[in-house]
Amino acid sequence: MSKLYAVGLGPGNSCFMTGDALRAIEESDTVVGYTLYVELVADLTAGKTVLSTPMRREVERCRLALEQAAAGHTVALVCSGDSGVYGMAGVLLQLAQEYPAVQVEILPGITAACSGAAVLGAPLIHDFAVISLSDLLTPWEKIARRLQLAAQADFVICLYNPASKKRHDYLQRACDEVLRHQSPATVCGVVRNIGRAGQQSQVCTLAQLRDMPADMFTTVFIGNSQTMQIGNRMVTPRGYCTDGAR
Amino acid sequence: MSKLYAVGLGPGNSCFMTGDALRAIEESDTVVGYTLYVELVADLTAGKTVLSTPMRREVERCRLALEQAAAGHTVALVCSGDSGVYGMAGVLLQLAQEYPAVQVEILPGITAACSGAAVLGAPLIHDFAVISLSDLLTPWEKIARRLQLAAQADFVICLYNPASKKRHDYLQRACDEVLRHQSPATVCGVVRNIGRAGQQSQVCTLAQLRDMPADMFTTVFIGNSQTMQIGNRMVTPRGYCTDGAR
Repeated sequence: MSKLYAVGLGPGNSCFMTGDALRAIEESDTVVGYTLYVELVADLTAGKTVLSTPMRREVERCRLALEQAAAGHTVALVCSGDSGVYGMAGVLLQLAQEYPAVQVEILPGITAACSGAAVLGAPLIHDFAVISLSDLLTPWEKIARRLQLAAQADFVICLYNPASKKRHDYLQRACDEVLRHQSPATVCGVVRNIGRAGQQSQVCTLAQLRDMPADMFTTVFIGNSQTMQIGNRMVTPRGYCTDGAR
Repeated sequence: MSKLYAVGLGPGNSCFMTGDALRAIEESDTVVGYTLYVELVADLTAGKTVLSTPMRREVERCRLALEQAAAGHTVALVCSGDSGVYGMAGVLLQLAQEYPAVQVEILPGITAACSGAAVLGAPLIHDFAVISLSDLLTPWEKIARRLQLAAQADFVICLYNPASKKRHDYLQRACDEVLRHQSPATVCGVVRNIGRAGQQSQVCTLAQLRDMPADMFTTVFIGNSQTMQIGNRMVTPRGYCTDGAR
């Protein structure tokens, strides 16, 4: 039985990796991943076979990792954040059905919702929804409906993939959906390049968020009706009782 | 300026901690936390002042940590999972306003949604909502409404605090809310004692979930309409297009 680890690297360099993730890479003789992410952990891969593939070739990348493991290698398939949140763990487990001799283990990492929240303060202290604005595999109508229902439910909302070159106005469109149910004064926050060089963050209102620049390296947080700004931080209280006594 | 780190320990022992979290504890001379969590990292606290407080005294615990930091100590306030998800980071930043000389840094950890997902397979690959069933600080009506809207939005739903002695039927009640909009055949999963001795997990249907035992150490996952069972794992596909080509 050969082993294939799906390893979440967290947001940036190896400081954000768990001990389990580090050990899995150590134990592996082969590391597979998207070029950029493999480079982020270059200090851990000396002496190992490193196979990197370009962006958006997830199926190909998973199959490469499975083939290597089936050939007897111990393989770490690395990805940014957590492979279980908009990551490769799903496709990997689907494809792994064809490779019964490969044992797949998923090792969680810090996803952008959590690492971004820590940069901004504490926006996710209470119930929240995570929504990707990428309509590559999901029709926009479904995304818009989820935004509306999440706003109606007064969830804090964390947006992944808020915009790209082809989808330059998607964050605006998303804000417009949320504005149907939440106030323009709702406290929001934006983090870019979490845990990497050039990390930036800003707290703003929902009205301001509509016109903020965003790209694929940006994670967006839209507060619930209770979320507040404290200094330059975004904080959601734990509940709706106001005694604060516990 | 003295330093106070809010450190997320992840689900279990130090294997799940990030390098940054480990270094923060190393750097601190004082460690504050709930007794059980402080014991989980006993191997890291030798030679340090350890101050532990009982459950549910979060305000007291945060104030203790702030007082220690204000007195010149470097303090790590530790908590299970991620302090930013139903954790102490929010209360801490609210109280920290009274301690301007203390610099608070939030260090994220692996929250149960991510660690539990990795045990079950890949349930959170697409948009999801995280909801706590604890009605200590949130009225049940608000929780029920969020469950209904999340089910209507076809989010994967991750439930924290699904039941306790006083709330023995809350998971049943939550399933009933979701069943208004999702099929009884919806794929679900339950994980108990994530990353700790006695870890258990099971994949089941929404109809079966209704009658599953659960407690404060259980994390529950309710799939969306696309979530499937693969072997004994729970996997949500990435989107709604079926070509699977990318």
